[in-house]
Amino acid sequence: MAQNTVEKTPVTILGLGAMGTALARTWLTAGHPLTVWNRTPARTGAFATEGASVADTAAAAVAANTLVVVCLLDDASVDEALAGADLAGRDLVNLTTSTPAQARARAQWARERGARYLDGGIMAVPPMIGVPEAGGYVFYSGSRALFERYRETLAVPVGTAYVGEDAGFAALHDVALLSAMYGMFAGAAHAFALIRKEDVDPAALAPLLSDWLVAMAPAVHQTAEQLRSGDYTKGVVSNLAMQVAGTPTFLSTAEQQGVSPELLTPYFELMRRRLAEGDGEEDLTGVIDLLVRRPAAAVGLPRAVSEAK
Amino acid sequence: MAQNTVEKTPVTILGLGAMGTALARTWLTAGHPLTVWNRTPARTGAFATEGASVADTAAAAVAANTLVVVCLLDDASVDEALAGADLAGRDLVNLTTSTPAQARARAQWARERGARYLDGGIMAVPPMIGVPEAGGYVFYSGSRALFERYRETLAVPVGTAYVGEDAGFAALHDVALLSAMYGMFAGAAHAFALIRKEDVDPAALAPLLSDWLVAMAPAVHQTAEQLRSGDYTKGVVSNLAMQVAGTPTFLSTAEQQGVSPELLTPYFELMRRRLAEGDGEEDLTGVIDLLVRRPAAAVGLPRAVSEAK
Repeated sequence: MAQNTVEKTPVTILGLGAMGTALARTWLTAGHPLTVWNRTPARTGAFATEGASVADTAAAAVAANTLVVVCLLDDASVDEALAGADLAGRDLVNLTTSTPAQARARAQWARERGARYLDGGIMAVPPMIGVPEAGGYVFYSGSRALFERYRETLAVPVGTAYVGEDAGFAALHDVALLSAMYGMFAGAAHAFALIRKEDVDPAALAPLLSDWLVAMAPAVHQTAEQLRSGDYTKGVVSNLAMQVAGTPTFLSTAEQQGVSPELLTPYFELMRRRLAEGDGEEDLTGVIDLLVRRPAAAVGLPRAVSEAK
Repeated sequence: MAQNTVEKTPVTILGLGAMGTALARTWLTAGHPLTVWNRTPARTGAFATEGASVADTAAAAVAANTLVVVCLLDDASVDEALAGADLAGRDLVNLTTSTPAQARARAQWARERGARYLDGGIMAVPPMIGVPEAGGYVFYSGSRALFERYRETLAVPVGTAYVGEDAGFAALHDVALLSAMYGMFAGAAHAFALIRKEDVDPAALAPLLSDWLVAMAPAVHQTAEQLRSGDYTKGVVSNLAMQVAGTPTFLSTAEQQGVSPELLTPYFELMRRRLAEGDGEEDLTGVIDLLVRRPAAAVGLPRAVSEAK
């Protein structure tokens, strides 16, 4: 077959959870020489019969190839797995879920051991791996050289998006997007709760809900422009004062439907606080500033002063 | 012009706020004879010069046409405006923001006064009125006969979606979708807050955020199917136990970035409670049941018993 005439980059994968397994399988299928290691060997069997090398230890798997992809449970598992491995000259791509600080510390840790480091944040679930039309991708940050070198290989299982030299940025982007998703899911949970005791089919609400969220999601572009310019009144259609005035309808409806408002009230409370402190002509963007803790020294200073710092 | 050869349904509009004005203008432009009334007359001037009739009182505006569209500030304003009007034989379409209970009470109130009643919940902001490609629409509920009779006229300014004979359903759908939107905005606010102190351009995050939310919004279809079937494990990819295990990464990242987690924690707390009470193999759908208050008598009963009630 044609694909065997082109030399494919050999890949080592540490960790064969659902995600590691999905990644490994797409590389193997695409003809990349593959070495796998998993803490519990049960999951490696299938790969051995399909032509992958199965390493007995993480250290042996690391020794096998220059490109080492790490996809373990958490940051502590990375420490544990790589404790005895010689990382000198290795190219480490760490897809293990991390916080930005963990990713930055891991990059430093890798450098100290003579390895190049790229951190990844996976915006996909395992069934989306190897399915380009599913739209999943991985945020990468850290060594740009490393990203460029392996760009093609990394793009085999799922899309790629490089977001900067700061090793923490992949995790930061990953957590930011997933946090926003949980907010959306929380809102959707409230919506479904509102109809739970009514003669409304949830499957009839779902397309309306999905379409509405899809239509409203691009509002984040305006939020971004407002954050950039510092002018939170730019392009406002329904201003903060009007929106705060509308909140009693939401809370009364929840009360009438026997639904706890606990997933809505924190946002409404921030809207109310921002209105009390600021400008009713603004958009909802000022809420973001209330979430960001100011340095202790700036507490109590007028806003213009603390922002001029 | 051709449109003048077809008789257009005359429309009375009570309330010329931003939304009432936008609606009135599209009907006027489309050739519908129009009568307008507003509590403060300042806003009616432009309509008079454009050929609309301006009524001095709400009662006179109601007397002018069979179809009376009400678009006032709130439910109390409807009482106030219509206190002296003779509604007998009128077809009342109330687009004033209401709770489901207010809409149901208003339908009853209208019936007692000899009027037919249709309630509406507007899924659009004024700039979307008269702009079909903007995708706005109005939920209608109440008299189906009324909806069918005026379907074409109502569709002139903005799309229509009839959701049932229960007059409260338009408001219920409206509040459900807007609540979900606030959840999504809350999530997006958290995401923007996370990058606020970093060298990340919000305008670079925005398209990633928007695309991700658009990609994840259709997850509500699976939620709906799970609610329908009662099987919350059906089609699960990332189960409740895994997602709860992931929450510390979100909270630590917020802490590291100096961001208050208050917009995320209520949802995470419900996830944790559901996991403690139930099945880790489930999706996040069980959170919805925790939001819905059970009847007092059912508290403390095993779930199967309380659900069999």
